[in-house]
Amino acid sequence: MKVIGIDPGLRSMGWGVILVQGSRLSHVSNGQIKGEGDQMCDRLMSLHDGLSRVIAEHAPDAAAVEQVFVNTNAAATLKLGQARGIALLVPAQAGIAVGEYAPNTIKKSVVGVGHAAKEQVQHMVKLQLPGAALTGPDAADALAIAICHAHHLGSAASLARVRA
Amino acid sequence: MKVIGIDPGLRSMGWGVILVQGSRLSHVSNGQIKGEGDQMCDRLMSLHDGLSRVIAEHAPDAAAVEQVFVNTNAAATLKLGQARGIALLVPAQAGIAVGEYAPNTIKKSVVGVGHAAKEQVQHMVKLQLPGAALTGPDAADALAIAICHAHHLGSAASLARVRA
Repeated sequence: MKVIGIDPGLRSMGWGVILVQGSRLSHVSNGQIKGEGDQMCDRLMSLHDGLSRVIAEHAPDAAAVEQVFVNTNAAATLKLGQARGIALLVPAQAGIAVGEYAPNTIKKSVVGVGHAAKEQVQHMVKLQLPGAALTGPDAADALAIAICHAHHLGSAASLARVRA
Repeated sequence: MKVIGIDPGLRSMGWGVILVQGSRLSHVSNGQIKGEGDQMCDRLMSLHDGLSRVIAEHAPDAAAVEQVFVNTNAAATLKLGQARGIALLVPAQAGIAVGEYAPNTIKKSVVGVGHAAKEQVQHMVKLQLPGAALTGPDAADALAIAICHAHHLGSAASLARVRA
């Protein structure tokens, strides 16, 4: 199955698609969509269009989005929420279930500890997806989210087999 | 011209359409779209679908959304941002410019003062749009946003005439 991870942001929305075959993960593609335009609505539309194109091209079976940690600046949180709304909407419109993970869960899943530095996450993403050329930090984060979702889907499937 | 006002919210998104003929305003329709589903992405999709249907039916020429006042609860602000992203996205997708107004600007435009109570806003909305049956408080707020936008568009047009 193909899994897309999405790292929502208004200026740049990272995405990364991986292929999951049993416990084996491999890199498919990654990129960053720019939120273009002066007006907020134009930026949101360009993010929506860009992400829709990515999902149409790669046809993932599952999607996951980071549960952004709310920061102290309320205005920034509101703006981030707007980008996040698009990140959740687009896969749902394509009929794909969307998982949500807290940043610490993602780090723990990829690096092994919840409080890893950004560089450490990128390093582990490259190790786990050999040959992946990272477009940028947001694309790297998106691949980390996809890896985390693959691990959780795998655990859920194993659990289902045990219970069956 | 027809103006739609949108009051974004995850549980209920208010909308109100008015007709603007010179300085004369009249009520067209109003309603509240429910964000349905257990998952956030489902709720966002139902809001997107509902608002898209309203815009397709009424074909407004202009849209306006409240610039929600950020509150102290960051998690709530993030969620509100997600709903607001949809409220900005849908008109933009229909090629309609979206105005944004702070709550105080809307109240000042409808009631005359920036710090009016909710009931006072509803009262003034009914007075300015005779015959309007309000679906609920969110729909009333949406009509207030539409009235505010009509006033600002009117002022801008007058200013353009003076300058020409």
